[in-house]
Amino acid sequence: MRGLHLDDAVLTWREDLPEPEIGEGECLVEVLRAGVCATDLALARGYMGFRGIPGHEFVGRALDGPLRGRRVVGDINAACGACPTCRAGDPHHCPHRTVLGIVGRPGAFAERLALPLVNLLEVPAGVSDEAAIFTEPLAAAFEIAEQLPLTPTMTALVAGDGKLGLLCAWVLALHGVRVRVAGRHPERQKLLPADVELVTGLLEPGAAGTGERFDLAVEATGNPEVLPRLLGRVRPRGTVVLKTTTERATTLDLAPVVVDELQIVGSRCGPFDRALAALAAGQVPVERLVSERFPMREGARALAAAPGQLKVVLEP
Amino acid sequence: MRGLHLDDAVLTWREDLPEPEIGEGECLVEVLRAGVCATDLALARGYMGFRGIPGHEFVGRALDGPLRGRRVVGDINAACGACPTCRAGDPHHCPHRTVLGIVGRPGAFAERLALPLVNLLEVPAGVSDEAAIFTEPLAAAFEIAEQLPLTPTMTALVAGDGKLGLLCAWVLALHGVRVRVAGRHPERQKLLPADVELVTGLLEPGAAGTGERFDLAVEATGNPEVLPRLLGRVRPRGTVVLKTTTERATTLDLAPVVVDELQIVGSRCGPFDRALAALAAGQVPVERLVSERFPMREGARALAAAPGQLKVVLEP
Repeated sequence: MRGLHLDDAVLTWREDLPEPEIGEGECLVEVLRAGVCATDLALARGYMGFRGIPGHEFVGRALDGPLRGRRVVGDINAACGACPTCRAGDPHHCPHRTVLGIVGRPGAFAERLALPLVNLLEVPAGVSDEAAIFTEPLAAAFEIAEQLPLTPTMTALVAGDGKLGLLCAWVLALHGVRVRVAGRHPERQKLLPADVELVTGLLEPGAAGTGERFDLAVEATGNPEVLPRLLGRVRPRGTVVLKTTTERATTLDLAPVVVDELQIVGSRCGPFDRALAALAAGQVPVERLVSERFPMREGARALAAAPGQLKVVLEP
Repeated sequence: MRGLHLDDAVLTWREDLPEPEIGEGECLVEVLRAGVCATDLALARGYMGFRGIPGHEFVGRALDGPLRGRRVVGDINAACGACPTCRAGDPHHCPHRTVLGIVGRPGAFAERLALPLVNLLEVPAGVSDEAAIFTEPLAAAFEIAEQLPLTPTMTALVAGDGKLGLLCAWVLALHGVRVRVAGRHPERQKLLPADVELVTGLLEPGAAGTGERFDLAVEATGNPEVLPRLLGRVRPRGTVVLKTTTERATTLDLAPVVVDELQIVGSRCGPFDRALAALAAGQVPVERLVSERFPMREGARALAAAPGQLKVVLEP
């Protein structure tokens, strides 16, 4: 099988990769498109010591089983289904899980991949291939709504105008939250809902701020220096959602967390069904976020070009 | 007026202190007993640049107003009552608040203090003076129950077997939570409810742990190095409550917070009425936590003796 292989922080195109092993209850999927995510860039720098086929944002076509021939997307967490965490209904946190292209399971930057059938969802006809690859990151944004009650009286500050920050802003706005985005790319204003303002400079080191304090802040920059600045931007009893992992440690004064009784909530993968429904309803115009396309065999060039860009798409 | 005065990290007994200024709606209170808290020790080291009369744990006798002659305890946060935060029903977070013996209001280590009448609660006859001075820290422990749903199916790890850790363990146990305390003083087992186990070594640097992961962890050590260790002791989607502020910054890897979708919740002052009701019902045997008594004029000696001890009480 052909695909991209990461070993010792070097990504190479190979034509001799083994076919995916198809476990019990799993389905073979032909990859139609894949998206490059910040996590892929981190893995390619050596994060988590990943070795194998990376890639977890994809749309594909099922090659066997009841979905055979259908376009599908798939939840990237493959749970064991048997442990107490799974039986308690929380497969995303199964301690035995593999994660497509991240932990113990070859990923989407190849001709084919395997995932449990229960992870796959059929893509509605009205959702394009390029839109469908956003199901995974959009689901991650919808995870905020699974974790917190979002109401139209709320205000939110999203830190970061990268892909994830923009998607989080869309999801919050869909729930009626009044959103501001603190970013570095004023030209991305047009990628946001009309009533969401993108401001620059608000979270730069030493920025004075407007004194405004938000009910909710979302950290979507991946920069460990931003969280300490965000703590001062939320009101007492407010919430900071951490959407990004970072490779570096964070140093912060936790006194404001205690004194203002803030809540810091980690947030990872989310509901694929909810994200796909939003794409089918045209609620989030994700295709505008595609900035460049590469043939998959040029993956190394694609990943080198990706930092600072919006979505880079790989085509087989 | 006689009392203790802190200036430039030096605590002195003075007999020429000005009488408390009694603002509108405030009540003058004669101090009967006061407790020394870790925050007092931090202030005495120079934390927050405090200057004036420290002390915020007290029981007293109202000298004027409708409670005249009654024994009282008092919520230490004196809110403005007029700002949006107060009008929203959250006076503990009033941005204009003064805090008895901590921020902008002379404290309890003196013959008399002033607090708003609305802050005072009459102490039931069955609650001794020494028990009553625990109302404030016990209320802080009850704050956890105000912030989180506590159920008898839950497990909790309390980090710290100091005063606050022990009180938190009692409050969690009162809610049916199965509690373990990670401490350094095995002899304090007898100060805990019968079904709460005190273990040592669990959170020391490099401790292997039992692999057990708790639904809830409470940081009550004041040591900024403990939080990173606690993150690995809670289950996915679990909660870490921060009960103590520290003077030093914390360095931590936030990836586990995101990957396991943990929640970190700051927790400060709590409901005085709930704490006083628990004391009146004899639900928490706080008097056992008194380790030493000093005349208030020997405050400097009392504070020097306090680190590592349980409750040190000052008597006028």
